Amino acid sequence: MAPKIKDVAKKAGVSVTTVSRVLNGEKYVKDDLKERVKSAIDELGYTPSHIARSLVRKKTNLIGVIVPDVTSSFYSTILSNIEQTASLNDYNLLVCNIIEDTDKELKYLNVFKEMRVDGIIIMHEKLNDEIREMIGKLDIPIIFSSVKPPDQQFISVIIDDYEAAYDATRYLIGLGHERIGFIGGDMRDVTSGQNRYIGYCKALADNGIPLVEDCVRFGDYKTQSGYTLIQELLDCEPRPTAVFAVSDDMAVGAMNAVRDRGLAVPDDISIIGFDGSQLTELVRPRVTSMEQPIREMGTVTVNVLIEMIAHPEKAPKQDVILRHELVVRDSCRRNE
Amino acid sequence: MAPKIKDVAKKAGVSVTTVSRVLNGEKYVKDDLKERVKSAIDELGYTPSHIARSLVRKKTNLIGVIVPDVTSSFYSTILSNIEQTASLNDYNLLVCNIIEDTDKELKYLNVFKEMRVDGIIIMHEKLNDEIREMIGKLDIPIIFSSVKPPDQQFISVIIDDYEAAYDATRYLIGLGHERIGFIGGDMRDVTSGQNRYIGYCKALADNGIPLVEDCVRFGDYKTQSGYTLIQELLDCEPRPTAVFAVSDDMAVGAMNAVRDRGLAVPDDISIIGFDGSQLTELVRPRVTSMEQPIREMGTVTVNVLIEMIAHPEKAPKQDVILRHELVVRDSCRRNE
Repeated sequence: MAPKIKDVAKKAGVSVTTVSRVLNGEKYVKDDLKERVKSAIDELGYTPSHIARSLVRKKTNLIGVIVPDVTSSFYSTILSNIEQTASLNDYNLLVCNIIEDTDKELKYLNVFKEMRVDGIIIMHEKLNDEIREMIGKLDIPIIFSSVKPPDQQFISVIIDDYEAAYDATRYLIGLGHERIGFIGGDMRDVTSGQNRYIGYCKALADNGIPLVEDCVRFGDYKTQSGYTLIQELLDCEPRPTAVFAVSDDMAVGAMNAVRDRGLAVPDDISIIGFDGSQLTELVRPRVTSMEQPIREMGTVTVNVLIEMIAHPEKAPKQDVILRHELVVRDSCRRNE
Repeated sequence: MAPKIKDVAKKAGVSVTTVSRVLNGEKYVKDDLKERVKSAIDELGYTPSHIARSLVRKKTNLIGVIVPDVTSSFYSTILSNIEQTASLNDYNLLVCNIIEDTDKELKYLNVFKEMRVDGIIIMHEKLNDEIREMIGKLDIPIIFSSVKPPDQQFISVIIDDYEAAYDATRYLIGLGHERIGFIGGDMRDVTSGQNRYIGYCKALADNGIPLVEDCVRFGDYKTQSGYTLIQELLDCEPRPTAVFAVSDDMAVGAMNAVRDRGLAVPDDISIIGFDGSQLTELVRPRVTSMEQPIREMGTVTVNVLIEMIAHPEKAPKQDVILRHELVVRDSCRRNE
């Protein structure tokens, strides 16, 4: 039979209220009482029930996290840093891997509500109407990380996707490329899909380079779609001398397709990626990429959320924009 | 003010006990009462508190998971399948990413105890004495997945690492290789480290091939250690014609080092990996690997754990051994 709080109180010769105050770390408990309670706890091997304590404290120290796909290097790196920062602050994570399934997202948001999590982090932006309605009504601090769904009152921790895509395209132009293909993301994504495409178009326009629609394709950020879509770009006449893929996974897929056709990166075609995932260093040639500060993104997300939990009235009104950075590796060369 | 269970009872014209029985899905509640309770819940927008309900039911539907490193493709793939199977069975995950830190593991096991999780999955085998003592005392079903710590009464879902390593080595011997280097894992790991090394040694011995200690190195399963350690193997005289790396990450690191030295895989040296991670398909040449059934491992782990939770008295006494499988890709060739 597991010891209960009243057993601790009896052993220490104090009231149940005193034990409870010690457990909750309240001030103004005399040191000798604290000591007696602590040794009684040790001797009995008593563990306070988190559940019971949550009912008293109205705080669960749980953060619910919605991840689109935990096997993606991008999301798992953010998640890992979310976990580290949460752990440092005594928060635990309830992680839900929705695999892009909005029904599952809705189910998990209900679980978060039932579990009375203290805050929610969402890394998925394809919200349907039910989800919009649900999160609009939830009385729990919510923050989006790495994504920015449209028409939401919630803040996001993101980079400026438009600027980053603009800078990536300008880098290729600076290397002398004028025929630059584009492998975009899902155009339903306001953040990554649309803004990266607009940044690409604007950089071409600002440099007097016409947009060639045959050189533009849209995928789903995964390696397979990069592999498939670049085949069509390689068949264009004349062939692009460079391609901008808006995820590192698609860039790696594209590089494999180029190689499987007997061509070489960067000698025959330059390829630049986006995100800064671990893959960029694991393949040969290593991938030049427009990088998001992935680790910082997880840390900042948790720090802002914890502030929102502690001071709901002072919740930030504006998105937190982190800096993107071009990391030059070996997959792009000057066009001569 | 959020509606409470007594508001639902009042609205439906039934007792609080009846509402509670409906919420808990108990049988023997009349259909018309059920309907009245359900419409009262809908009208009021009542959400039962998971916390309060857990206190009544003595069941939290939470599974605690200890992951060594969520950014590893191997663990994140298992985790993703654990999540899917858990979700199908209405369990939610409390995921703890310990980054090989045993202090953190101990802390999280305490959190699991406090949260009254229904079961625990551990994917980490370097247990220190404190952790051994703690899990020995926990009155919660525990299962290990992909690892087998020594001297434990708990069961594991694993492959036969010895057999798998034996088969991988025999495959290289079958291709005509006689000088076969080895990049092993951490020899403190009873499962992956020691058993894979013993399997390698036994396959050499059974085929009359002497073990050359200069051709054996031990790393930490990560790409960087594969990259570093193969340098020493490449300096051996005569150079090995094939290398067995006991993780795909180390195999990819080794392949990159070979390439960065101006040599080619498999023309100058064959390399075989282990695990079956996504990386095997993402790099060129694609990696021949002795694969674990990673997806099945996550699914089986959860199914066995759920059985243990439901029927503690019928808990399985033996490890569940899954089949390994050689997947031939492009990183090994016949030695002529």
